Amino acid sequence: MNLEILGVEGIGEVRPGDDLGALIVAAAGPGSLRDRDCVVVTQKVVSKAEGRLAAVDPADPTSHKPLVEEESVRVLRRRGDLVISETAHGFVCANAGVDLSNVEEGYAALLPVDSDRSARRIRDRIRALVGVEVAVVVSDTFGRPWRRGVTDTAIGCAGIAAVVDLRGSTDALGRELKVTEVAVADEIAAAADLVMGKAKGVPVAVVRGLDESWFRTGSVAEEIVRSPTDDLFR
Amino acid sequence: MNLEILGVEGIGEVRPGDDLGALIVAAAGPGSLRDRDCVVVTQKVVSKAEGRLAAVDPADPTSHKPLVEEESVRVLRRRGDLVISETAHGFVCANAGVDLSNVEEGYAALLPVDSDRSARRIRDRIRALVGVEVAVVVSDTFGRPWRRGVTDTAIGCAGIAAVVDLRGSTDALGRELKVTEVAVADEIAAAADLVMGKAKGVPVAVVRGLDESWFRTGSVAEEIVRSPTDDLFR
Repeated sequence: MNLEILGVEGIGEVRPGDDLGALIVAAAGPGSLRDRDCVVVTQKVVSKAEGRLAAVDPADPTSHKPLVEEESVRVLRRRGDLVISETAHGFVCANAGVDLSNVEEGYAALLPVDSDRSARRIRDRIRALVGVEVAVVVSDTFGRPWRRGVTDTAIGCAGIAAVVDLRGSTDALGRELKVTEVAVADEIAAAADLVMGKAKGVPVAVVRGLDESWFRTGSVAEEIVRSPTDDLFR
Repeated sequence: MNLEILGVEGIGEVRPGDDLGALIVAAAGPGSLRDRDCVVVTQKVVSKAEGRLAAVDPADPTSHKPLVEEESVRVLRRRGDLVISETAHGFVCANAGVDLSNVEEGYAALLPVDSDRSARRIRDRIRALVGVEVAVVVSDTFGRPWRRGVTDTAIGCAGIAAVVDLRGSTDALGRELKVTEVAVADEIAAAADLVMGKAKGVPVAVVRGLDESWFRTGSVAEEIVRSPTDDLFR
């Protein structure tokens, strides 16, 4: 019933080729990860470890723009410098996820090519290193229509459902719930951001105490990305 | 750095006129609420306590529709039975927040008239009863464009920022962050839902360990609702 969210400090600057699973295990400390922990890892360190960095000209504030076009499969809106577009994964976000913050000067970070696979790789690595069966959510910071402020959201997951289907469950008054598919991976990403913050250098958090029934094979791309035909706003 | 989320069980069925602050204090147990806890309360019990219920005909699955029209100031999309509309508060959601689940048969729950005020009232009542200075977030379950599954989001808050402005902070590499306004009230609502679930009869959760600097006067209506002129999707 209760949940703990633990920030993992001391990961340090991540570089291309780094073994993120090993860095997380080392920073968390010996024996501290447990079966059914959900490890939330921000996209930025995943992209860095996977070498998803592209050179930009720090003197030219527009030099990342061709990257945004390359990373977009469809542009939904443009206003001034802002582009809201759909990525190859099906995510709709600002600048197709191309991001200059918390990246070494002269580089932009791109989204992982397959962020569900990134999550699986970290999960497998942690299992191999310490024999613990964790779930992994890769999170990124997206804006939303209609509401100000960004929130962290899931762009990849492994070992946990992205969406939990409560259809057929009964509500607290004993009546059948019609349609309640809860995007738990997004809620987990948002929860983890409450300890990670944007400026604190804490790119990983552990969420402990999640419902056991949610732990299974999961995929953000398959479970959360809404198909365009099913979408009233695309 | 670490966060705890505690489900508050035993609130029971809430009825019009009930003193929600007192119910929360009683269910949480003596001495269990602390200064700078954030108490998350689901909209459903707030609406019930405030008598925001309207009669519907349980035999007629369309009888809530006139309520949806009444509660909408603008309809953004319609498809089949689904209406995505803007409420008087400025929230964009399905059916203007009119909801039949977890409500006694023959009634629909409407959103609180002023959910920031609802949050303030609960906060003031808890302070009066036990002398503890908590923040309160009123949460509701909304869908989103582009992504499947619902998440819990803030529709009212008191005693905590709805949006935290990290503009001017430095990122982990020491460079100034340009624009990062984080909708912490929404992230708190999402986090709380991880312990409340939809079918468990746990309408209140306590989030403990949030950043002290976030505790101040807050308003979802003023801080999170994006003005139509500022919105690319309205």
